[in-house]
Amino acid sequence: MPQHVVVIGAVALGPKAAARFKRMEPGSRVTMIDREDVISYGGCGIPYFVSGDVSDASQLRETSFHMLRDESFFCQTKGVDALTGVEAVKIDRKAKTVHTRVVKTGETAVIPYDKLVIATGATPRWLNVPGESLEGVFHVSNLHDAERIREAVAKGRVKKAAVVGAGFIGLEMAEALRDMWDVDTSVVEIAPQILPRAISPVLARMALKHLRSKGLRFHLGESLVDISGENGRVNCLRTDKSRLEADLVIVGAGVLPNSALARDAGLDVSHRQGILVNARLQTSDPDIFAGGDCIEMRHLITGDTFYLPMGSMANRQGRVIGTNLAGGTAQFEGALGSFVVKLFDRSVAGAGLTLPSALERGYDAMSALIVQPDRAHFYPTKESMTLELVFEKGTRRILGIQGFGGAGDAMVGRVNAVAAMLKFKPTLEDLSNLEMAYSPPFSSAMDILNSLGNMADNLLAGRNAVVGPDEFEALWAKGNGNGSSPYFLDCREEPDARQLLQCLGKERWHNIPQGSIKERCAEIPRDKQVVVVCNTGARSYEALVTLHDAGFRDVVSIQGGMTALTNYGSAP
Amino acid sequence: MPQHVVVIGAVALGPKAAARFKRMEPGSRVTMIDREDVISYGGCGIPYFVSGDVSDASQLRETSFHMLRDESFFCQTKGVDALTGVEAVKIDRKAKTVHTRVVKTGETAVIPYDKLVIATGATPRWLNVPGESLEGVFHVSNLHDAERIREAVAKGRVKKAAVVGAGFIGLEMAEALRDMWDVDTSVVEIAPQILPRAISPVLARMALKHLRSKGLRFHLGESLVDISGENGRVNCLRTDKSRLEADLVIVGAGVLPNSALARDAGLDVSHRQGILVNARLQTSDPDIFAGGDCIEMRHLITGDTFYLPMGSMANRQGRVIGTNLAGGTAQFEGALGSFVVKLFDRSVAGAGLTLPSALERGYDAMSALIVQPDRAHFYPTKESMTLELVFEKGTRRILGIQGFGGAGDAMVGRVNAVAAMLKFKPTLEDLSNLEMAYSPPFSSAMDILNSLGNMADNLLAGRNAVVGPDEFEALWAKGNGNGSSPYFLDCREEPDARQLLQCLGKERWHNIPQGSIKERCAEIPRDKQVVVVCNTGARSYEALVTLHDAGFRDVVSIQGGMTALTNYGSAP
Repeated sequence: MPQHVVVIGAVALGPKAAARFKRMEPGSRVTMIDREDVISYGGCGIPYFVSGDVSDASQLRETSFHMLRDESFFCQTKGVDALTGVEAVKIDRKAKTVHTRVVKTGETAVIPYDKLVIATGATPRWLNVPGESLEGVFHVSNLHDAERIREAVAKGRVKKAAVVGAGFIGLEMAEALRDMWDVDTSVVEIAPQILPRAISPVLARMALKHLRSKGLRFHLGESLVDISGENGRVNCLRTDKSRLEADLVIVGAGVLPNSALARDAGLDVSHRQGILVNARLQTSDPDIFAGGDCIEMRHLITGDTFYLPMGSMANRQGRVIGTNLAGGTAQFEGALGSFVVKLFDRSVAGAGLTLPSALERGYDAMSALIVQPDRAHFYPTKESMTLELVFEKGTRRILGIQGFGGAGDAMVGRVNAVAAMLKFKPTLEDLSNLEMAYSPPFSSAMDILNSLGNMADNLLAGRNAVVGPDEFEALWAKGNGNGSSPYFLDCREEPDARQLLQCLGKERWHNIPQGSIKERCAEIPRDKQVVVVCNTGARSYEALVTLHDAGFRDVVSIQGGMTALTNYGSAP
Repeated sequence: MPQHVVVIGAVALGPKAAARFKRMEPGSRVTMIDREDVISYGGCGIPYFVSGDVSDASQLRETSFHMLRDESFFCQTKGVDALTGVEAVKIDRKAKTVHTRVVKTGETAVIPYDKLVIATGATPRWLNVPGESLEGVFHVSNLHDAERIREAVAKGRVKKAAVVGAGFIGLEMAEALRDMWDVDTSVVEIAPQILPRAISPVLARMALKHLRSKGLRFHLGESLVDISGENGRVNCLRTDKSRLEADLVIVGAGVLPNSALARDAGLDVSHRQGILVNARLQTSDPDIFAGGDCIEMRHLITGDTFYLPMGSMANRQGRVIGTNLAGGTAQFEGALGSFVVKLFDRSVAGAGLTLPSALERGYDAMSALIVQPDRAHFYPTKESMTLELVFEKGTRRILGIQGFGGAGDAMVGRVNAVAAMLKFKPTLEDLSNLEMAYSPPFSSAMDILNSLGNMADNLLAGRNAVVGPDEFEALWAKGNGNGSSPYFLDCREEPDARQLLQCLGKERWHNIPQGSIKERCAEIPRDKQVVVVCNTGARSYEALVTLHDAGFRDVVSIQGGMTALTNYGSAP
């Protein structure tokens, strides 16, 4: 029997669910309403529109074949009645109706439904500081904001900008302002690192160093106090530690699920206000589905519910809802939190848990950090990447992976390969044996993922003992010119170690090439910790094995070697 | 107790197993012998040395930190005694000895072992035609051959070249000759397609079209009859159909496992002469391990043993052997046949079974072909790729994936993500829900892999019915100007369809935009098959749904749309 489905919200999930349902049940009717006038746009593209990579805002509203996704598009090509500028004010579950109001005129109506989809999305979080509604302060909630920002920068009206929040959107917007428009841009972040929760402090500092090299300024560990201006226009921003001039302020402090409508209708929502759904994406009312930025979902590693507002979730969930509206049994099992973000000519990506998040969740976890080229080391276009693998000690289960690499697809490709395995609960052996397609222009015979699995295996077996570039920094400081200094052993060949040796002096820095350690180990003191370093950590591991074999017990190798130290900024 | 391990063969697997074992048991002794004087080189890099991408042959012998992997390197840095120019002539399993002979002097010796590793590799297959040993005919078995080829082309001595075999090596060598040295190069292949067994005929023809556009000539379905020359130097090659002039002939007809030594020692070998091993990589003698190009391995999809001579296998197997030599319990479970090959500015990759190989193996399989951009369609650097998914109908199990895309890492990244799942026996739902890291510069909100899973799901549910570009060709030919012609319906917008409509005429080509089909379906004959086409197959699927709903039963959509037809070369 034909149904009438009402969809509240017409960006990402709503249109996807509506169109999928109409293909499954062409005889049924769908009414999709949205309080905005511009619908079905690619919100994730906003930073690239602001930067100018995407030349026209309409491109974010077009299909790949250049048709504008407006009301008539949905009517004509999808058979979906789209009503814009119409707000849902109330869901009456008993009567199975949605009460609506035309935003401009206030005209009300009541729309009956057989099944309802809540796709109300999210709203940028306001920080509730003075001055947040001054002209020139944006929370980037839609395309109109994006157009105003771009217009302002394109006309040269913005000399100095401040971005509040060093999450994905914040950094993407900061890059857009700096890279394309040469705006003097500062980023304020309350956490002590960029991309908090997404990556470990070590990878975050590598990415930070790169962002700083591109001219962005950072105020980490600072919280916004107020925003002030003149004649209603922003000109300044204060944190608890600094005062920044700014003609433009972008607040990227996360988003909050738009769940009031659902909550008021008595549907279950979490303490974070995300709508709660089952694997079929039904709310606590089986005739009402919800998905996208307004719901919570299950984390595929921890089993917890969590909030992950991403366009990729919305699209896949939309299809599941469309299928289930038509009586199907599709499931959305949950999410891993896979992500990637371009940062000028580098990128950061990840999937699953970071080491801090795994430890916080009670896993007996550790991580391994590796630096290796993305393709055969003799292939001319090779570029090195850093990957950090998070795994559980006892079970050897892989919990997550994060990386810092070039801006191409090589690093994210490795993260995606691990992401593809994660729900199957892979162990280190699955990574060591992972069969990546091999050819010198694309990979190494021993791919970085295989090496990473092997490295983790060696750590667990006690064959290798490592410290990261953060811990190196502490060791280096500790040994600053007194007797408690560890013995720093550079095990590269003499020409590679020469410069450091000259700079630091033979008291603080020692060079014995890895191949000579066995015969020269008498030179190494047995009453000190030995810290071995090479270019990437491969030879220092071999040196450590040799030292262990020669009876040295307190030996650590720098994971990622000089490359990691340099990327991190702790090279001596 | 310290052991003496003997390793026969010092390329890829041998060195890896030796070095791993020495790190596990530094007190034990390893003797690694090889009949060649150049050892531990990256043979997979040979085409890139011939092309000049790798400037010097020694780079293929160097570590990533520029140390030459010669005998003294192995002795000094790995603690492995490497003997070059020494051939193993016999294994005496009872006495646990290897009989050796110095290649140059004929001097013999007997080396006792506690454990033995056979890493004898493979030898290029000879076709046994007259003239195969003429000067200028190469089977590319080692770096010396590569150096001679490069010298010849670099000195301009080669005007015309012929490559026999359109497999990976053959095509890589053909590209090297053509792209870097502008040599007029022809490729002869006995199969009717390039890369037989690796990809389906459809993807093969797309890749072929690209290779031809780069100036390579192809003789497919032709078998080599003889090679002839003058004064001992090649100048001509004959197939059963053609005669080709050539100053240089490269035979890339596969390789054969070097298993005579093992077989003569009574170890089990297959009918293909590959040494048989268990998951610990032990031969039928538990003290003798074998790996690399001389063994067979288990196929992780079919469970059969098969032969897969690849450097990436050898390296991972080497570590497993090294661990097990030291009493470990590492396993090499088998392989999926993942591969990637660069073809000028395109690439081909795959993992698991192709459709022909799945059908041949008795699977009730089908495939789905998709064309979609590798990143957000509004992102400026987007590039389209074609993926073919092979799956089993009843179980919905994914059996394999192959692709044709750009020369970057985007397409192989998708293949690797599927490869990473394959051993866990994923279904179409796992692909539909696969969580690829999302951001417009790297992917679409609905990644091509998700869309591919969805497309396969729609095919199995009967919601979509497709034909490929090969079948389109037949349909188009069938309808050449007579009454039995299908009704070809271009469902793109009028401006996109205009040119074809003008070229082909309104008798043969019809245009009704997808959004107008519902109201204009009276124009479409009900007594003919309707063949719907758009740019990539997305809109033609929607058109098909509309036509089904309007009572049309015999409707097919062109999978991959005009893009696939153009790439394939069957666009009308």
